Amino acid sequence: MSPTPITVAYGDGIGPEIMTATLHILQAAGAQLAPEVIEIGEQVYLRGNSAGIEPAAWESLRRTRVFLKAPITTPQGGGYKSLNVTTRKALGLFANIRPCVAYAPFVETRHPNMDVVIIRENEEDLYAGIEHRQTDEVYQCLKLITRPGCEKIIRYAFDFARQHSRKKVSCFVKDNIMKFTDGLFHKVFNEVGVDYPDIEQETWIVDIGAAKLADTPEAFDVIVLPNLYGDILSDVAAQIAGSVGMAGSANIGDQCAMFEAIHGSAPRRAGQDIANPSGLLHGAIQMLTHIGQHEVAERIHNAWLRTLEEGIHTYDIYSAAHSREKVGTQAFAKAVIARL
Amino acid sequence: MSPTPITVAYGDGIGPEIMTATLHILQAAGAQLAPEVIEIGEQVYLRGNSAGIEPAAWESLRRTRVFLKAPITTPQGGGYKSLNVTTRKALGLFANIRPCVAYAPFVETRHPNMDVVIIRENEEDLYAGIEHRQTDEVYQCLKLITRPGCEKIIRYAFDFARQHSRKKVSCFVKDNIMKFTDGLFHKVFNEVGVDYPDIEQETWIVDIGAAKLADTPEAFDVIVLPNLYGDILSDVAAQIAGSVGMAGSANIGDQCAMFEAIHGSAPRRAGQDIANPSGLLHGAIQMLTHIGQHEVAERIHNAWLRTLEEGIHTYDIYSAAHSREKVGTQAFAKAVIARL
Ligand SMILES: CC(C)[C@H](C(=O)O)[C@@H](O)C(=O)O
Ligand SMILES: CC(C)[C@H](C(=O)O)[C@@H](O)C(=O)O
Repeated sequence: MSPTPITVAYGDGIGPEIMTATLHILQAAGAQLAPEVIEIGEQVYLRGNSAGIEPAAWESLRRTRVFLKAPITTPQGGGYKSLNVTTRKALGLFANIRPCVAYAPFVETRHPNMDVVIIRENEEDLYAGIEHRQTDEVYQCLKLITRPGCEKIIRYAFDFARQHSRKKVSCFVKDNIMKFTDGLFHKVFNEVGVDYPDIEQETWIVDIGAAKLADTPEAFDVIVLPNLYGDILSDVAAQIAGSVGMAGSANIGDQCAMFEAIHGSAPRRAGQDIANPSGLLHGAIQMLTHIGQHEVAERIHNAWLRTLEEGIHTYDIYSAAHSREKVGTQAFAKAVIARL
Repeated sequence: MSPTPITVAYGDGIGPEIMTATLHILQAAGAQLAPEVIEIGEQVYLRGNSAGIEPAAWESLRRTRVFLKAPITTPQGGGYKSLNVTTRKALGLFANIRPCVAYAPFVETRHPNMDVVIIRENEEDLYAGIEHRQTDEVYQCLKLITRPGCEKIIRYAFDFARQHSRKKVSCFVKDNIMKFTDGLFHKVFNEVGVDYPDIEQETWIVDIGAAKLADTPEAFDVIVLPNLYGDILSDVAAQIAGSVGMAGSANIGDQCAMFEAIHGSAPRRAGQDIANPSGLLHGAIQMLTHIGQHEVAERIHNAWLRTLEEGIHTYDIYSAAHSREKVGTQAFAKAVIARL
């Protein structure tokens, strides 16, 4: 098998550490990859490029169409746009898939039976980036919801559920208030749902749905929802499953795909070799599946699971009752490699 | 003491049942109230009044300036506006105070030490109600944040913290994406915070803040945040404290105030005498404090607490381990009255 070209960005904060750890594991497991490294994020912003990315990097992305990305820091203030969002939009990555799974009894969680996949719309909503200052005292941001956008993500969610033998898709909206925008999402959910009579379907008002998710995540299977709700509730779901440090995310478009951890660059934890590389590793496992390297993906997942099961834990999931050894980022990667 | 005139609406769904229970308790406890009952909500909508409220009801509200309101149902579809939001905006109720408290060990919760007060901005944000259909495929909703709106709610939160001897105020925003609107909220939080050096202050990005809240609510004290985040996260907080059925809410303006349960009208549970009246009762207790009837407020709270402690629970908080008797709405009220 000839190696698949992928684009890799080491990111900011804890990014370089977790990317190094992840790439070690991929290599040791025999993933057939030809990484092209691009520089994006803080260093590029600070050179005065407010997009945080240069033309050569876009060329690499358009060529490989597969992007493994570590977290990026957006400088505070000024006109800096989030590069995460720019990338998702520029590459048309309309679906953000975030599995939030408990690994009980190996990792402490109050929700041992949790296994939720959050499918977040990834281009529209308040993330459309249309914001302006009307006067010094009045600021506005436009929430944008389109019918094609709704159809695409909702169909994706139902297809995903079928392919992964999942029984139910839940839709979260606030259409008692936003009757047009969230109302459209809800309406399209009902319309598209007709094509999937084999899959149970339900809609929750996002406030009470969020409460149910935080309290009884076992009640959910696949959840499809607009961008901002998905942002907030995937962090909630990942954290109560064990740690935001463990969840990976696939950003899927018609042409390209990007894989990442769901968490941020945690600048205060940078350079200390303490971060959990599992989130990015899960993104990488999703990537391997995406490019057809199923066997390696499974091998890595199993070795990772054995590492957890044997109580070799980074600080974020360490607990006296559940862990045997507290390890740093690179030691965790070595432990996974030893179990491949 | 001459009775304080208040306006009362029995609402829809479970509303009439929990209002009846609540008013019985208030009366038995010796609250000095002269209730004026108004009809609002579903019946009024269905008579063709899309506002769900008639002029005489507004007159009562403007006269008494104190409103005890049961949950209301907004009919699905059509041009019906949420009356909850109309009332908050028409009466200028800019602050929504939602205490979310655990009552361990009497009520089951995974977060026995939780005691969070959510102070939600109540007039702006996506609730401004500016929404339109651009084409058949494109819908928009305007998120509106103003400097005076931010200043008012944030100052309210800090003053509340001081008055209630609370140590910390946390601000939740998504200003890495919404740099203007949420950026303004964050900026004003920092500016106003300067006047409260005695109170600890912190800001969270709403996604990771929500994750922390769902996982470790003990880490928070007072939280101030824009309208929609407050809507979602107060349901989360109330539910993980024990039940959304237990939390009350005070909607405070310069002239008027409205008190309610944080939950909805639960039409599917209506007419069965099973709903927990505690949320509305807590709203009523906040109301008694607001109008200066502190002693009665405390008496009711203590009797309510004793009822819980003795394991007399409605279905939503019933558990074999923590409860002695499962009771209906009116029986719960009688049990509280017996302990006054
Ligand atoms: C960093 C931020 C722009 C991003 C988002 O809001 O989407 C992150 O929170 C995420 O969930 O991937
Ligand atoms: C019923 C609904 C309009 C309302 C809101 O969104 O504010 C409710 O959820 C609440 O939190 O009081």
